[in-house]
Amino acid sequence: MAPVTNGRIIFNSIPEGFPVPGETTVYDTSDTIDIDTVTLDGGYLIKTLELSIDPYMRGRMRAPSKKSYSDPYFVGKPLNGFGVGAVIRSEHPEVQVGDHLSGYLDHQQYIIKKDLKGLQKINNSYNLPWSTFIGVLGMPGKTSYMAWKEFSHAKKGETVFVSTGAGPVGSLVIQLAKRDGLKVIGSAGSDEKVKFMKEIGADVAFNYKTTKTTEVLEKEGPIDIYWDNVGGETLDAALNAANIYGRFIECGMISGYNNGHSTGIKNLFQVVAKSLTVSGFIIFRLEAKYGDEFYKTLPPLVASGEIKYTEDVYNGLDKVGDAILAVQKGTNKAKAIVHVADD
Amino acid sequence: MAPVTNGRIIFNSIPEGFPVPGETTVYDTSDTIDIDTVTLDGGYLIKTLELSIDPYMRGRMRAPSKKSYSDPYFVGKPLNGFGVGAVIRSEHPEVQVGDHLSGYLDHQQYIIKKDLKGLQKINNSYNLPWSTFIGVLGMPGKTSYMAWKEFSHAKKGETVFVSTGAGPVGSLVIQLAKRDGLKVIGSAGSDEKVKFMKEIGADVAFNYKTTKTTEVLEKEGPIDIYWDNVGGETLDAALNAANIYGRFIECGMISGYNNGHSTGIKNLFQVVAKSLTVSGFIIFRLEAKYGDEFYKTLPPLVASGEIKYTEDVYNGLDKVGDAILAVQKGTNKAKAIVHVADD
Repeated sequence: MAPVTNGRIIFNSIPEGFPVPGETTVYDTSDTIDIDTVTLDGGYLIKTLELSIDPYMRGRMRAPSKKSYSDPYFVGKPLNGFGVGAVIRSEHPEVQVGDHLSGYLDHQQYIIKKDLKGLQKINNSYNLPWSTFIGVLGMPGKTSYMAWKEFSHAKKGETVFVSTGAGPVGSLVIQLAKRDGLKVIGSAGSDEKVKFMKEIGADVAFNYKTTKTTEVLEKEGPIDIYWDNVGGETLDAALNAANIYGRFIECGMISGYNNGHSTGIKNLFQVVAKSLTVSGFIIFRLEAKYGDEFYKTLPPLVASGEIKYTEDVYNGLDKVGDAILAVQKGTNKAKAIVHVADD
Repeated sequence: MAPVTNGRIIFNSIPEGFPVPGETTVYDTSDTIDIDTVTLDGGYLIKTLELSIDPYMRGRMRAPSKKSYSDPYFVGKPLNGFGVGAVIRSEHPEVQVGDHLSGYLDHQQYIIKKDLKGLQKINNSYNLPWSTFIGVLGMPGKTSYMAWKEFSHAKKGETVFVSTGAGPVGSLVIQLAKRDGLKVIGSAGSDEKVKFMKEIGADVAFNYKTTKTTEVLEKEGPIDIYWDNVGGETLDAALNAANIYGRFIECGMISGYNNGHSTGIKNLFQVVAKSLTVSGFIIFRLEAKYGDEFYKTLPPLVASGEIKYTEDVYNGLDKVGDAILAVQKGTNKAKAIVHVADD
């Protein structure tokens, strides 16, 4: 077969504010690949199927000298992130054609790999869509499940507030909290997202753009647990509305990702005044403790529909830049997936 | 004997900024007491000896409608706080003349009590000065000892940064950390305090008024543990200098007590980026777990001089207002004690 285009998304420049499609990232089609004849050198060839677009990716768009929990992207190199791919050729003894792998993939249509580093074979015994393995059954799902188990110390009858409650992480937190018998307050940035939060069981769901978070929490709180995906003013509101001995699970602070976290947190003294515990975490550190439990518990619940999820699918690798910006602005409708190719 | 003045400190008005002696609090001598004949009604009579002046007292000078971890003071009523008193008369079966009690005392020279609520008999088997029971062996000492045990997860070779390291809480933290084999960085607001921190073992001690905290931490960090007594810019500096998986022990935030915590915390995203754990606490909640151990461990170490402490003694109950202001401004030289009467 003749060579085909091997499209990829290049990290082109470090953004100051929001990442700009075509400037921060560019879709590059200059490379070609002959998938039948390309040399594998004992490795294997992946066709990229689905890519996950996540809030944390903004943090990787930084000068490499700045240290953080995630590796930086390098200007001139492809982006990478969680994805699912299908093996279409292999010379590797542990990898067979037809295997599906999830994990870190370059944002590229076809990828040659030498080993399984950063990837794992998907055991899809419930025949779930491949995209679930980068969503509710992937990093976002693990984030929710494992950190909830580790840090929430949830007790029946308590109240939890979940920000970005319609996102892939928040929506699973809402459902886990309801299964634990908590009162759940969820916030998100559109009426469509509010509707979804109600569908998955949130007792109170509101659009923070049209309803004041402080007022909702004053009426519906105090809150025993705050699942923080946004930081900023929402975190300040949660600190004020916290119950004594409250637990704050610091998953992310997207409100600051595109403005250098310039909004200072004013109410942090509540940590002292109310004996709060505020926990940041890195999900891979919890994998050893909760990995088996996660893979045993979640897939059947997703397959049966007891745990719900929703996706906002962008068709085509060239849409990565748009999806990244939407996630940073919160204009995506749900968990953002870039569908690169059919299986 | 004829009646004598029973001086007391009245909470006179809720301060906006720093508490003003004579305005926020007034020394009132209008009351008298005949200590030989005053009716005890089955209770007992305490002569107040020593009173502890602590940072948290500022938080009690608030409108009673504002909830916090400590009870508010009431305008027109005496202040109260930790103190030591001697029993000089008793009709109470569990209290004998000559007993010494520590705990919550009104700021008053003579106090009639009906029960032992909030007080405990002092077992002074090492013949230590009574003031130690409101200092290194009292609430500040317990705060350091118990929270260090509970939250530091200290490992030999790690680095800890202690703010207000010459105070009663910070100075014991420094000594406990050295005993655990840590590198200790201490900050305080005068050269005299810096000298004391070095005497008790701090590896690095600096005056934050003349040396930049950020520069010291950049050079001497990263820090695995931050013992926070001040909040504000120091907390921001510590967040930036934190090592991954750092522990922040939030004991107090005195930098905000007199300005409504108007300095926002800018670097809280480090909690997410570095997987930090930030713990607020109320010391009484740790008493059951560590009380016995504390009373077994600390008094002999204080008696032998292995654990050092220092005091700034204000003579006379009328000095309470000055001592409170000094503690809030940090112009006290060491742990502030008001010496009310000799034993």
